[in-house]
Amino acid sequence: MSNKQILAAIVSIGDEILNGTTINTNASWISTQLQPLGISIHEVIAISDNAQHITSCLESYLNRVQLIVITGGLGPTKDDITKKTLCTLFGSELVFDQDIYNRLKETFEKRNIPFTENNRDQAMYPNNCRVLPNALGTAQGMWFDRNGTIVVSLPGVPFEMKGLMTDQVIPLIRQTFTLPVILNRYFMTSGISESYLARQLESVEDKLPDYIGLAYLPSPAVVKLRLTAQGRPVSEMEEMLNRLSAEVSGILGSGIYAFEPVLLEEHIGKLLKESGKTLSIAESCTGGKLSHKITSVPGSSAYFPGSMVTYSYAIKTSHLQVPEEVLQTYGAVSQETIEYMLDGALRQFGSDYAIAISGIAGPDGGTPEKPVGTVWIGVAGNGDRFIKKHFFNKNREINIEYACMFALHELRLLLSKHLAKPAQ
Amino acid sequence: MSNKQILAAIVSIGDEILNGTTINTNASWISTQLQPLGISIHEVIAISDNAQHITSCLESYLNRVQLIVITGGLGPTKDDITKKTLCTLFGSELVFDQDIYNRLKETFEKRNIPFTENNRDQAMYPNNCRVLPNALGTAQGMWFDRNGTIVVSLPGVPFEMKGLMTDQVIPLIRQTFTLPVILNRYFMTSGISESYLARQLESVEDKLPDYIGLAYLPSPAVVKLRLTAQGRPVSEMEEMLNRLSAEVSGILGSGIYAFEPVLLEEHIGKLLKESGKTLSIAESCTGGKLSHKITSVPGSSAYFPGSMVTYSYAIKTSHLQVPEEVLQTYGAVSQETIEYMLDGALRQFGSDYAIAISGIAGPDGGTPEKPVGTVWIGVAGNGDRFIKKHFFNKNREINIEYACMFALHELRLLLSKHLAKPAQ
Repeated sequence: MSNKQILAAIVSIGDEILNGTTINTNASWISTQLQPLGISIHEVIAISDNAQHITSCLESYLNRVQLIVITGGLGPTKDDITKKTLCTLFGSELVFDQDIYNRLKETFEKRNIPFTENNRDQAMYPNNCRVLPNALGTAQGMWFDRNGTIVVSLPGVPFEMKGLMTDQVIPLIRQTFTLPVILNRYFMTSGISESYLARQLESVEDKLPDYIGLAYLPSPAVVKLRLTAQGRPVSEMEEMLNRLSAEVSGILGSGIYAFEPVLLEEHIGKLLKESGKTLSIAESCTGGKLSHKITSVPGSSAYFPGSMVTYSYAIKTSHLQVPEEVLQTYGAVSQETIEYMLDGALRQFGSDYAIAISGIAGPDGGTPEKPVGTVWIGVAGNGDRFIKKHFFNKNREINIEYACMFALHELRLLLSKHLAKPAQ
Repeated sequence: MSNKQILAAIVSIGDEILNGTTINTNASWISTQLQPLGISIHEVIAISDNAQHITSCLESYLNRVQLIVITGGLGPTKDDITKKTLCTLFGSELVFDQDIYNRLKETFEKRNIPFTENNRDQAMYPNNCRVLPNALGTAQGMWFDRNGTIVVSLPGVPFEMKGLMTDQVIPLIRQTFTLPVILNRYFMTSGISESYLARQLESVEDKLPDYIGLAYLPSPAVVKLRLTAQGRPVSEMEEMLNRLSAEVSGILGSGIYAFEPVLLEEHIGKLLKESGKTLSIAESCTGGKLSHKITSVPGSSAYFPGSMVTYSYAIKTSHLQVPEEVLQTYGAVSQETIEYMLDGALRQFGSDYAIAISGIAGPDGGTPEKPVGTVWIGVAGNGDRFIKKHFFNKNREINIEYACMFALHELRLLLSKHLAKPAQ
């Protein structure tokens, strides 16, 4: 164990990232993988497929950081110059690797793609690097050690990069560096604003020792809290984290839905699956996005028979039996309509629980009494129900996202009450 | 008009971007806004909220680029040090701005938030910058001119940053720089792979003059093609682009759905709206995501009465009248089931057109005959229908995305056929 700070730079090579065509999700993913190892990200940079640019960028990092992770520029086209540039920079010779060659040939033959001698280039690798075999693609990773600074080059295709990072780079990093021990504790909260959480936790913040940090990571309806300890003996850190965790749990109580980083839709899926209950949904303004969230969880068919998007008045009446006079009198965005939508969903799908949402996502459709962003959300089941009016003062896309996330929050409160199990 | 290359650097300040909590969508958005102006993005970098780091980063760019766009670090908390750091770097004095102060006070009062004298800091700005008033938030933008290199500092909140860029920064850039004239022509294609497009367009590529580039920007089911001309008199570029566009249109024909950058769901919405037709959807494996795409378009209620997510066998039978024996004999992922789902959707929603999707998104549920990624997609309307089996060999999330996009592609083919209007 050591307290020496290990710094990393993440270098993304490719014009498509520079010009904004591709959002640099690789870099953020790599950051999230390195951080828990106790590696600090010094800089994240995107540069062009240009040898001089790549060289000067890497040279500038070689003396500043201990780890450089490069993605991109390893494909077979003439734009892809990362390998050649690294050879020049590190004085490498390209050598032929028979194993890689055989593997490539086999892959091509399996896919019925003609294998030409041009593909031989894809089996040539620098003689002074460790080749990291890529099980998911044709470009291998490379691991260079330059006087103690590690330079890793990975393909830019996200799932290939992720496979190599997980299976090879991270284990090698653990072997190579003396990593600090970092201990994390998570608290997933929903329905509480970041500023309210901060006020609630003032007493905890005040007594945090200098080797423990508390981070607030907010997203719609959910704030992830993370306590991070570093730099003391494990037993001391464990003990302090236990004490602080008990305190945080005591203060936030049922505001916490989990003690590990899980999405609200995953948590709800787990609750439903474990209790053998089912859920259906009647969506209006969210237009299918809430159903999509529920079904994005693998195995959701076990507890989700289906849902309806009832966008028009007529379909609300014909499919969910919302009476026409209710729609005419109170409007689709009203507590009364939500009551009928909940009943309709429970009856139509024969489910144990139901969610109903109706609102004005925008940009049009608002009125002085019901401005854009007004959303009614209801959850029901087990003879119990909860209906609430929300106001999300955002654009269409974000109003929809907030409505979905608050609906999940309210469902989890109802489920927790009925299933009477502590959050876990 | 000038051919001098203008280089820009985009600097994102904030630990949440470095540590991967926030994906840097601001940087990619800014890139996409600067590029059409003829500005080349030299580097995109993310750095920490650290004065020394910010200073050394900006200093290194001041001599290399003509434009630096900084986002982040302008909030009211003690982590936010961008303004102070810029003052030190540029020898500015902070001066009080009464107009900003009044506007802030008014905003706070409207929202019923107490306005304390602490908020006065938010009305202090460097005396040697142009303040860019932020209509959407409390942190204003700043525009510095350092011997011809422009340094712009913007808040990190995406919609505030976007508002300032669009309303103020881009007009000022146009006034300040002699920008090259860049002409673009777009061809939105669907259902054609990038490699097939490249082969089809070989004859066009071969005769491209050196002042025109052809870019392929692929996404699931859609490839955006862009011809870009730069560096010649406008009339010459226009003429050549017209000639090349006619050729590209001739080769790709109905493969092109639009000549401007619009999403497939927006294009379909326009076709439906203009023709007064309606669309309903019966989704299974896509679980609501296709409905969400359709309803993400403002005004979609004009042509979308609703949809159903029929996840279970029982709901497919009760809600869409897919006969039990069809499900038992052929399975839910079959042409036969899709036929009934289409009929059910058309009948249940009384719509002119319908889409039905049933497949195996994964990771579980695959069989040797129907592996994960097998998806049947059907579109129907006006007495006509088209049903096709697809195989998307990806993970759950991406299989769902592909299924949605190919469904939209097939609907647009059917609509084009019936509405018999050229793509526009």
